[in-house]
Amino acid sequence: MSPTDTCKFLDSLGDEARVLALKHFRTRFHVATKPDETPVTAADFEIERRLRELILSRYPLHDIVGEEEGGEIGDGITWVIDPIDGTKSFVAGIPLFGTLVAVLENRFPVYGMIEVPALRERWIGYGNHTVLNGVPCEVSQCIQLRDARLCATDPRIFVGEASEAFAALSRAVRISRFGTDCYAYALLASGHVDLVVDADLEICDVMALIPVVQGAGGLVTTWSGRPVNERFDGTVIAAATQELHAQALRVLGQK
Amino acid sequence: MSPTDTCKFLDSLGDEARVLALKHFRTRFHVATKPDETPVTAADFEIERRLRELILSRYPLHDIVGEEEGGEIGDGITWVIDPIDGTKSFVAGIPLFGTLVAVLENRFPVYGMIEVPALRERWIGYGNHTVLNGVPCEVSQCIQLRDARLCATDPRIFVGEASEAFAALSRAVRISRFGTDCYAYALLASGHVDLVVDADLEICDVMALIPVVQGAGGLVTTWSGRPVNERFDGTVIAAATQELHAQALRVLGQK
Repeated sequence: MSPTDTCKFLDSLGDEARVLALKHFRTRFHVATKPDETPVTAADFEIERRLRELILSRYPLHDIVGEEEGGEIGDGITWVIDPIDGTKSFVAGIPLFGTLVAVLENRFPVYGMIEVPALRERWIGYGNHTVLNGVPCEVSQCIQLRDARLCATDPRIFVGEASEAFAALSRAVRISRFGTDCYAYALLASGHVDLVVDADLEICDVMALIPVVQGAGGLVTTWSGRPVNERFDGTVIAAATQELHAQALRVLGQK
Repeated sequence: MSPTDTCKFLDSLGDEARVLALKHFRTRFHVATKPDETPVTAADFEIERRLRELILSRYPLHDIVGEEEGGEIGDGITWVIDPIDGTKSFVAGIPLFGTLVAVLENRFPVYGMIEVPALRERWIGYGNHTVLNGVPCEVSQCIQLRDARLCATDPRIFVGEASEAFAALSRAVRISRFGTDCYAYALLASGHVDLVVDADLEICDVMALIPVVQGAGGLVTTWSGRPVNERFDGTVIAAATQELHAQALRVLGQK
């Protein structure tokens, strides 16, 4: 698997996801509720199934983990799929949902793709490169919390002390904005957002974001400053610069 | 002012706003903070100034009220402008911001435009017609809170009892989503969102939304079920159907 081949293959997965997502977006579809109370649609299952097929037929020995059908991370190469991240947006006709695919080698995310079908934008990150629709992008140089543009998926994911910590952080920044899901991390990679804070994330929600943010020059850790890996606690902080990351960790009170 | 002429003129204002907004969007621009702590950029001022010029040169006797430069609603025809609604989105590179223009006759909003530059979508509402990019649209037929897709701009606009009321409402619906500003009302007019609840809105934020939602078959009132006019209390509830509106008012506990 050369990097060029892998990125090309990721692009083809993105193309496929885009067609399938847009076939359903803003049409009348049934919304089911998963045991964890989050919504799910036929589009989620259809996209994951199709991406699994394409990956399996090309790399029959690789492992696959998906949001809807599960699976286990292996010690070789594992593909991690979130067919629709931001299903609430998808269900409400808001174009900020995305399809996430990560490639893990030895359990670490090496490639990541954030495909945003309704906006026809696709970020792919690998090593120290991230591209948006094929054009290199990089994070902002924001180093002060008071200048920072902060995003978070939903304030209700922060409970108890985390809620207070998040409130403190949002008071310290220039602006804060909810409802962004994976799109906030993509905007961070492109330098439009400086800081993203989330909690309660799962493996499939997070793995693809890491190479995209890191490839553009940003950092991703947990709220304790630890690496985000398969045993992480669900908290994530992504920052444009080390300075901003350190200040945000301090305000979140966990360092 | 015939309806056809007015809608054409609104379209030309939308074209102009789109060009100006996209000239600034996702570039490096300075963000100032207004006395009410909300962000404002050169794009806000530039768009409002240009729209005022165009309106004045065509209708020199009409009144104009704008978010940035103020003005007073008159008894004849008044144009109400919010150059960038969702400035936080604009500042963070999120494409959900919009330019709002309303035409008031005898102090009531008769025409409304929601222009969404970055998505190249424009809703115009008048009488019992609302169009999205020239194509008629209509609200959903959702009549049950438990099926409803709810949007609100930001949970922090709900304070004290309003916060509890909003929390109760968000528990009663299928999904709720933040960070939408004017775009939620546009999606309501197109049938993708069923209910929008806001507080703390001003004249310039709200007037254009009313004809867009009403023209598509929806309802807009305050949380007390009263008409939204220049003396309203800043609260807004917009609903696809009377049934949904009545249920939401009940949960908000003000009826």
